[in-house]
Amino acid sequence: MASFGGTMNRLQQTGKTVPLHRGRRLDEDLAGEFVRIRARSQELAAPLSAEDACIQSMPDASPAKWHLAHTTWFFETFLLERFERDFMAFQPEYRMLFNSYYNQVGEKYPRPQRGMLTRPPLAEIQEYRREVDARLLRLLQEVPLTAALRELLILGLNHEQQHQELMLTDVKHLLSLNPLTPCYRQREPRGQVPNPGPPAAFEWVEFDGGAAAIGHRGAGFAFDNESPRHEVLLRPFQLAERLVTNAEYRQFVEQGGYADARLWLAEGWDWLSQNALAQPIYWRSDESGWKEFTLRGLLPLAPDRPVVHLSYFEADAYARWAGARLPTEAEWERAAAGCDVAGHFADSGEFHPCAAPAGTGLRQMFGDAWEWTQSSYAPYPGFRIAEGAVGEYNGKFMVNQYVLRGGSCATPAGHIRSSYRNFFPTGARWQFSGIRLARDGGR
Amino acid sequence: MASFGGTMNRLQQTGKTVPLHRGRRLDEDLAGEFVRIRARSQELAAPLSAEDACIQSMPDASPAKWHLAHTTWFFETFLLERFERDFMAFQPEYRMLFNSYYNQVGEKYPRPQRGMLTRPPLAEIQEYRREVDARLLRLLQEVPLTAALRELLILGLNHEQQHQELMLTDVKHLLSLNPLTPCYRQREPRGQVPNPGPPAAFEWVEFDGGAAAIGHRGAGFAFDNESPRHEVLLRPFQLAERLVTNAEYRQFVEQGGYADARLWLAEGWDWLSQNALAQPIYWRSDESGWKEFTLRGLLPLAPDRPVVHLSYFEADAYARWAGARLPTEAEWERAAAGCDVAGHFADSGEFHPCAAPAGTGLRQMFGDAWEWTQSSYAPYPGFRIAEGAVGEYNGKFMVNQYVLRGGSCATPAGHIRSSYRNFFPTGARWQFSGIRLARDGGR
Amino acid sequence: MASFGGTMNRLQQTGKTVPLHRGRRLDEDLAGEFVRIRARSQELAAPLSAEDACIQSMPDASPAKWHLAHTTWFFETFLLERFERDFMAFQPEYRMLFNSYYNQVGEKYPRPQRGMLTRPPLAEIQEYRREVDARLLRLLQEVPLTAALRELLILGLNHEQQHQELMLTDVKHLLSLNPLTPCYRQREPRGQVPNPGPPAAFEWVEFDGGAAAIGHRGAGFAFDNESPRHEVLLRPFQLAERLVTNAEYRQFVEQGGYADARLWLAEGWDWLSQNALAQPIYWRSDESGWKEFTLRGLLPLAPDRPVVHLSYFEADAYARWAGARLPTEAEWERAAAGCDVAGHFADSGEFHPCAAPAGTGLRQMFGDAWEWTQSSYAPYPGFRIAEGAVGEYNGKFMVNQYVLRGGSCATPAGHIRSSYRNFFPTGARWQFSGIRLARDGGR
Amino acid sequence: MASFGGTMNRLQQTGKTVPLHRGRRLDEDLAGEFVRIRARSQELAAPLSAEDACIQSMPDASPAKWHLAHTTWFFETFLLERFERDFMAFQPEYRMLFNSYYNQVGEKYPRPQRGMLTRPPLAEIQEYRREVDARLLRLLQEVPLTAALRELLILGLNHEQQHQELMLTDVKHLLSLNPLTPCYRQREPRGQVPNPGPPAAFEWVEFDGGAAAIGHRGAGFAFDNESPRHEVLLRPFQLAERLVTNAEYRQFVEQGGYADARLWLAEGWDWLSQNALAQPIYWRSDESGWKEFTLRGLLPLAPDRPVVHLSYFEADAYARWAGARLPTEAEWERAAAGCDVAGHFADSGEFHPCAAPAGTGLRQMFGDAWEWTQSSYAPYPGFRIAEGAVGEYNGKFMVNQYVLRGGSCATPAGHIRSSYRNFFPTGARWQFSGIRLARDGGR
Repeated sequence: MASFGGTMNRLQQTGKTVPLHRGRRLDEDLAGEFVRIRARSQELAAPLSAEDACIQSMPDASPAKWHLAHTTWFFETFLLERFERDFMAFQPEYRMLFNSYYNQVGEKYPRPQRGMLTRPPLAEIQEYRREVDARLLRLLQEVPLTAALRELLILGLNHEQQHQELMLTDVKHLLSLNPLTPCYRQREPRGQVPNPGPPAAFEWVEFDGGAAAIGHRGAGFAFDNESPRHEVLLRPFQLAERLVTNAEYRQFVEQGGYADARLWLAEGWDWLSQNALAQPIYWRSDESGWKEFTLRGLLPLAPDRPVVHLSYFEADAYARWAGARLPTEAEWERAAAGCDVAGHFADSGEFHPCAAPAGTGLRQMFGDAWEWTQSSYAPYPGFRIAEGAVGEYNGKFMVNQYVLRGGSCATPAGHIRSSYRNFFPTGARWQFSGIRLARDGGR
Repeated sequence: MASFGGTMNRLQQTGKTVPLHRGRRLDEDLAGEFVRIRARSQELAAPLSAEDACIQSMPDASPAKWHLAHTTWFFETFLLERFERDFMAFQPEYRMLFNSYYNQVGEKYPRPQRGMLTRPPLAEIQEYRREVDARLLRLLQEVPLTAALRELLILGLNHEQQHQELMLTDVKHLLSLNPLTPCYRQREPRGQVPNPGPPAAFEWVEFDGGAAAIGHRGAGFAFDNESPRHEVLLRPFQLAERLVTNAEYRQFVEQGGYADARLWLAEGWDWLSQNALAQPIYWRSDESGWKEFTLRGLLPLAPDRPVVHLSYFEADAYARWAGARLPTEAEWERAAAGCDVAGHFADSGEFHPCAAPAGTGLRQMFGDAWEWTQSSYAPYPGFRIAEGAVGEYNGKFMVNQYVLRGGSCATPAGHIRSSYRNFFPTGARWQFSGIRLARDGGR
Repeated sequence: MASFGGTMNRLQQTGKTVPLHRGRRLDEDLAGEFVRIRARSQELAAPLSAEDACIQSMPDASPAKWHLAHTTWFFETFLLERFERDFMAFQPEYRMLFNSYYNQVGEKYPRPQRGMLTRPPLAEIQEYRREVDARLLRLLQEVPLTAALRELLILGLNHEQQHQELMLTDVKHLLSLNPLTPCYRQREPRGQVPNPGPPAAFEWVEFDGGAAAIGHRGAGFAFDNESPRHEVLLRPFQLAERLVTNAEYRQFVEQGGYADARLWLAEGWDWLSQNALAQPIYWRSDESGWKEFTLRGLLPLAPDRPVVHLSYFEADAYARWAGARLPTEAEWERAAAGCDVAGHFADSGEFHPCAAPAGTGLRQMFGDAWEWTQSSYAPYPGFRIAEGAVGEYNGKFMVNQYVLRGGSCATPAGHIRSSYRNFFPTGARWQFSGIRLARDGGR
Repeated sequence: MASFGGTMNRLQQTGKTVPLHRGRRLDEDLAGEFVRIRARSQELAAPLSAEDACIQSMPDASPAKWHLAHTTWFFETFLLERFERDFMAFQPEYRMLFNSYYNQVGEKYPRPQRGMLTRPPLAEIQEYRREVDARLLRLLQEVPLTAALRELLILGLNHEQQHQELMLTDVKHLLSLNPLTPCYRQREPRGQVPNPGPPAAFEWVEFDGGAAAIGHRGAGFAFDNESPRHEVLLRPFQLAERLVTNAEYRQFVEQGGYADARLWLAEGWDWLSQNALAQPIYWRSDESGWKEFTLRGLLPLAPDRPVVHLSYFEADAYARWAGARLPTEAEWERAAAGCDVAGHFADSGEFHPCAAPAGTGLRQMFGDAWEWTQSSYAPYPGFRIAEGAVGEYNGKFMVNQYVLRGGSCATPAGHIRSSYRNFFPTGARWQFSGIRLARDGGR
């Protein structure tokens, strides 16, 4: 997802219906879904000024304006251009400016300079969105909904949702650099969860070993990297019932976790030393205690909420300090198979993870925070790159990245599933990435 | 000027009147000058969108919004705070955000992150300007115009003019990175000079050797680095009557000037090799020939206009290739002493140098292009750093920079004089910097 | 192995005898093995002048002198210091200078400055080796050969063998930078294989899918990262019967393989572009054709010999170009289980891979070239870090590295086995690393 | 001198005799001087092992072996090749390996890789020196001593002396990186000066203003950058009678000089901050107090000896802290005109500056420490680059460097003169560079 530019889907074509959004049948209202998801991007961008939307705060991030344009470019390039009669580009230059693909779709503007594009202005990108939306809705009325068109449309919507999440994490990084600690959104969230006291110790949930099938199954949409479904052999294992909290991670920080090389992977220790790091990226401390920069501004660190914005190195070091380890992605998926795909997603408007709900058993598997696994991002056995793909094969990112599972508080509801594989390099900290502890079972 | 943050003035206090703007007596209408110069900054920023005004395209440059705010901070900090009764800051945070001073005036926001400040928005900076302007004009009516207040006001206005020029060169760099090659200003200039054919060969103008006095003299404003006036011994020398043109420099480019190490200073050759340079920063070539990016967009390279945006290394190499050398700053000032301070400045609205006017004798000494000298930027004999200065001493930039003279097409008319010393590091290319050739005289 | 500093062994203690060297029982002559392996390091260093042995040609490499000292430091620190009565360090400063361990054994001299150690001179390091050898042999006569002592001794000898290989690859890199293209060894090798014509097309060897056990088994020595032995599920697969040759790889080079982004992992393409690479690190071309720098100097590129010194990125891109893929480490180990641990190792004195022997079926699985797998270096299920380990846990390198299998022409015979896991980062090119193609089976 | 590769001489051809070495007439014994100076290089290299002589500790430095070879290459290329009948190169490859010239004399081996040349071995370079020496002495007997030959010979000897000094400073830097703090020379120096107590306060010596002639005059050898002799106008000024001592500089260090931005040039402050500097490069402190790494090992900091190994930035900041400034090179030369060219040079064998001798008036003007001036390195008025020069023009280094005067304890006696201009970039710390304070006179 860090590099979706190259993502390519693999649609399951066996079924007749494609549930994109939980509880709704897509073929009943594909146009409606299109309208809803496109509008959601606009909603998410609404709190941003043209200035906010223009800046690229680091090479890994993109300006919000670019996200808004690139997702539109996708529909223009892969749908309108292919299916519209008498297609004409909205602006020929946009074909290059908002292309993130390496080779197969023409020239590309260099990624680290995306923040230099003060022109076209945001208002013109909004116009671009309106025109492409109108033309696409017209297209859907005028041409038959072939499988190819439907698949590309569904892919485009999933693509748009990925960029919705990135828009949030990228703007958070940008605002965090501003000494004014501006808020992305100030009003109270709809579904805010009251902040209880520090969490009780957590329980381990035990899982049997043996063969387990992982990978996408069924009729819904999935990205190509989730296939083929295949069996793996697992040993018995245990997962923590909930995510690691700020209070727990704070102990690690305060007890010298960032100063003890024995806890860190060698490369992690080098990374930490070169960057002189001693705490999570958005934590601040002053005489009044720990604070955390959030999309609602700088707030006191909430002890019971999950710790987020950790790199793989930090997650791994914490797990070692805690006498545990990170789960493999197969363990995670095996465990998640029994869970509802429900949780605290971007739709709540909170834009920050919530404390684990009361109860027993596995919780917070979906939403709140992406969970680092110890699995490097690699092709599943038998994975094949589709020929003539929309964009480029997903496989080109399958090196030196690690898999995260479960979605976060910035993930659109309906976008995630138990086989979903997100991936980032080991030093990435600007995503809502947290920790679920694991350990060997059979104790 | 590259680093005006630390500039400190040295006002001549002998006379009663201080001509800031040619042909007008400042004490007759100091408030009027204030209004005029502050309004000019607004005019220059008018073609910029909030997005244009927010981006920092490289560490050497600053966003236009920052220039607008920093110049206002200067008046707020050094005038309002000192002279206003019941002073209250417009926004306490601005004291840090728009401070460019190292130490003596509180905390400073790191320069390379000026482009991250999407907040405060441009509109709020405009409000900041309006309020400070109003309060300053009220102050001028309410308190007596002491020498201290008058000096600070004049300094602030000169400071503002320096940033007006930087605003133009910084935004030019930003727009040059945009593949859309946007124009800063599209309408026709007021005083556009028709583009004649390629220039004739130039003549040399001879100057005698002997003692010459350089440095600021008289009652007007000057920066501290222009004093003390002192004598130097010169040998006879010659200056080219006009600036080097694009047509002449193009020969250097096309005849392998960038590939012949013998023409370059050793450090210049390393600089060129590491950056893989083969032409001036804003030159582009395609099948239709050479073009130049200007503040009016991408235009065919005009053969008779002066070449600009050269680094010291390029200016020096060209001079060597041409069998000449760069002048010293003393030679330049000695020659300029006989010239009117007139030329083609920013007020024309052209924002690009013009071809030399017809005629004989020294031309283009003021305006059009800053002229690199071979003199390193150093204190004049007897230079003293004022104690308790406004900001910091100018001397802190007196190392590894070279002096440029004469002003450019981006310099406000009335800002320049024959003793004015601009300075930049040897690799700087984003200023309107060109070449006047010199050679030893007495031939 | 790149970072053996942290390697820790896990000895199997079930059996009574520990075959270190094929065909010999270690407990019959552990002292003899010690003498033989320590002498072998001296033999390998013999062609090097004191100057050759002192230089560090890049941060990843170490000077030969450092290898000779560090391996001796290991015996001094982990054996003499623990078991010798009245232990005294040969030189107290060596404890820091030749320590590669991060934390647990005192201070460490910074790795990138190993090449600054002109003192102690090589002659003194030879003296250090002689004294530690003599004291260790005396120790073996005087104290009972406990399990702990025996294990440490065997670990030290395996450690020494790893550094023997690194000494060869590091000195090759150093000599390659010298325009004189010096030879490490000029005389004819003992067992040189005649150079046949270009190789015929290769055959694929098919393997069934199903459960396969991988990891170390039995009584012999193995490193901790080879355990625990565990089962994995494999799909049917095929392996090329031999390694990819220079002739084959040359086609890839000459047909534009390094210029086609579609063949490369995204990170690989960035790596290639930033380093402006167009061929393997030791290939040179001039009017007389392709040459290859070897430990015997610059030689014409031998078409039938395996291509070596490839990064993971190059190996992966070649495989994609060839319509195949790299094997997983489980596939490789499953296939190797049926092969004798025999091949062309460092003992031949050739120090370069040889052409595949005639025949049918899997060849070159051991020796000649390390074979990149697509498996990232990760802990086996149930892997545990030994407490109070000799040095530090191997697991600290288990991130962002990929596994190589089978040993090379620079690996000491007897050091390798089918469960042996070597690992390097994806950009490493200075090892004898090559390609064995794989593809999905069941065709 | 930092970059002598490009230095070219300008011999004065008016006189008949060329005093190279004080007190001796060169034409009486030019061959004798050749033997003496070449032998001196060997003496200076004698304490170095082959390993010491091979390493390049940083890009600015060169290995001693390279210095020994490059100076020999000079005689081979510019004398033997031109004047010897049937010239044959000692080794054709050396023409490239030991060439420091950019363009005019063929290919050049990249400077930062000089430390990779383990071959040819030091012994072979010694052989190279012996052969070239023998052939040159034979040449001097066989061909007439034309002016051209004599000039080239004298230039080569001055060149050799420059590299003698660099050999000392380069090896000092190398040894300083070794935790064993090895000594370059351990035996007692011949002329060691007893270490008196801390120095008394110094006196200022006053000089009149007016016209002063600077630049080389007379019949002796001088480099081209010392000409033409010309007049400059000076204001009255004062110089400290001696160099700044360690005791004085220690006060600056201990009173927070490295933490007060107001004392530093802006670029100096950035340099200091990025490199986290708090003291001179070879100063160390522990519980027993300040120590200094010298060519005789790590010694207690001698309070009365001159502080050395300062960058321009440090020298400038100290002067500002002390209420003074650095002299200009014209002031220095004006003052030095009245001094004997006598002092403490490399010939003493001390290889470290000594305390100022007792007495009154200007002392330590020659020897002990190079004295930073505030003058940037620039061509004298009328300076012309000789055509067809030996090597390349000196002028190519005339940018972003500052002039040092007077020679040091590492300069060969007889090599220096009052018009001699050494030059280094502002961050260079590895030379024996110190401070003589200046201030405006006429008080």
